[in-house]
Amino acid sequence: MTQRLRGVLAPVVTPFRSDYAPDARRFVRHCKWLLAHGCSGLAVFGTNSEANSLSADERMTLLEQLVEGGVPAAQLMPGTGCAALTDSVRLTAHAAKLGCAGVLMLPPFYYKGVPDEGLFRNFSEVIQRVGDARLQLYLYHIPPVAQVPITLGLIERLLAAYPETVAGVKDSSGDWANTKALIDAFARQGFDVFAGSEVFLLRTLRAGGVGCITAGANVNPHGIDRAYRGWQSPGAEALQAGIDEVRRILQAQVSMIPALKACIAHYAADPDWLAVRPPLVELTVEQRATLVSDLLAARFDMPGIAP
Amino acid sequence: MTQRLRGVLAPVVTPFRSDYAPDARRFVRHCKWLLAHGCSGLAVFGTNSEANSLSADERMTLLEQLVEGGVPAAQLMPGTGCAALTDSVRLTAHAAKLGCAGVLMLPPFYYKGVPDEGLFRNFSEVIQRVGDARLQLYLYHIPPVAQVPITLGLIERLLAAYPETVAGVKDSSGDWANTKALIDAFARQGFDVFAGSEVFLLRTLRAGGVGCITAGANVNPHGIDRAYRGWQSPGAEALQAGIDEVRRILQAQVSMIPALKACIAHYAADPDWLAVRPPLVELTVEQRATLVSDLLAARFDMPGIAP
Repeated sequence: MTQRLRGVLAPVVTPFRSDYAPDARRFVRHCKWLLAHGCSGLAVFGTNSEANSLSADERMTLLEQLVEGGVPAAQLMPGTGCAALTDSVRLTAHAAKLGCAGVLMLPPFYYKGVPDEGLFRNFSEVIQRVGDARLQLYLYHIPPVAQVPITLGLIERLLAAYPETVAGVKDSSGDWANTKALIDAFARQGFDVFAGSEVFLLRTLRAGGVGCITAGANVNPHGIDRAYRGWQSPGAEALQAGIDEVRRILQAQVSMIPALKACIAHYAADPDWLAVRPPLVELTVEQRATLVSDLLAARFDMPGIAP
Repeated sequence: MTQRLRGVLAPVVTPFRSDYAPDARRFVRHCKWLLAHGCSGLAVFGTNSEANSLSADERMTLLEQLVEGGVPAAQLMPGTGCAALTDSVRLTAHAAKLGCAGVLMLPPFYYKGVPDEGLFRNFSEVIQRVGDARLQLYLYHIPPVAQVPITLGLIERLLAAYPETVAGVKDSSGDWANTKALIDAFARQGFDVFAGSEVFLLRTLRAGGVGCITAGANVNPHGIDRAYRGWQSPGAEALQAGIDEVRRILQAQVSMIPALKACIAHYAADPDWLAVRPPLVELTVEQRATLVSDLLAARFDMPGIAP
């Protein structure tokens, strides 16, 4: 078992070329910038990575390119939960074999209203088929997008069956009461609760969670890490307010993923970063101008980002 | 271009072995039974096929096994719409190359609230990358499950851009007003509207649609085909009422897919048909008993079905 990840993780945005092919060179470079500027880990292939717009083979190739490019597997928590059980098994086994710190697993998300028994069988099959004692599985609860929730009852069953493997959760419900309930129910068993947004960072840490895995960390890892490291300091509330402001500016755009990419494109002076894969659409010129002007007005910067 | 399909199509349920591997032998046999008992075509790899629980490779292998097993490609309309653009391209190209009558395409269904422009780009990329003049693309509108709709505005744009390729729609909205609007807007251009359930069959045909692609056709192809062929006869309403009754019994179960499989398992005296892949769960013994007793009370039968 590798060291458990805590602190600030970015669900790294995936750069595309104009033909929508993943751009490994920019991806490796951005991952390294994130690790050098406050991220303790990288939750590549998350929702904000447009991972569900990538095939299993595309994801595996990119993960190998990351590791070959010098990004330590011990800092990676790739998303490996797919609609198809067999894809989830394949991606999870691949990540474990590469020595990744963990995997972040969506529930199978096509069929809606499925019983917890079916979700239990899904995760259980993945764990058993992968059969790798190193596997650290983090559950990914994001009902606004996946529409299939991961309930406390399901976590309880999974923890009882696989206490060495089921390592934690990312809660992207946007519902603080749920994050709090997860911490209260399971943190004492060594189950690591990550907030799904930096806006819940301070509350999560005070309640007993371990950090956040958040879109905003793609552009503001330094700010969020400062808030993480200072959470017990007298300035904790001010640090939280600072990262909240950046998040508000990013979220004011129609869609978070193209906004993150527009932000990187601006600060890296690299317009190729604007590309998103269908069904997403990049920001308009006007939306980009508003975003950049709001970020500049807030004195936001991405130190050391290069084209 | 092959002959356009019309009439009754089944989104064929996919049999699994106890290890959740697809069972090609039972699949070929069920497809042949369906074609011999009223189905004019087979919409394999639909929602009711648990297709989104299968990897792209599993689908392609099964499709090849069907064709090799003697199921005519000219009667096949496989589902090829995936969350990932690259998977959709791969499956669609494969189906076109095998000579399938058409493909039934879900929109990319992970990201919610995406703009029509993004969905247009998705379908457009698939059509252009496949680049096969034989391709007949049917759009699959199933907002209760996919949560991403295919709007009239999107269809209008796609038809204008690809009039030779965009062939029709399956409307599984459950909203008759939407089906009617689709027929009124596009049927005159040779755009084929299929109802997504047999309960709308008579209304669809009277309004100018071409048939239905429906879960119920997995077990009641003979009944639904009789209603299809008799739609202009004096007995049309009675035929519709008959198929409505069977549908009601199937739908009374907690979940349609395990109910269809339980029905086949009973009439074929083949309990291996009960298996569903996670995240779905098979019916309980009690649910199965109720289903079978209701079907027998309605004098329902699956003539010629064999273990």
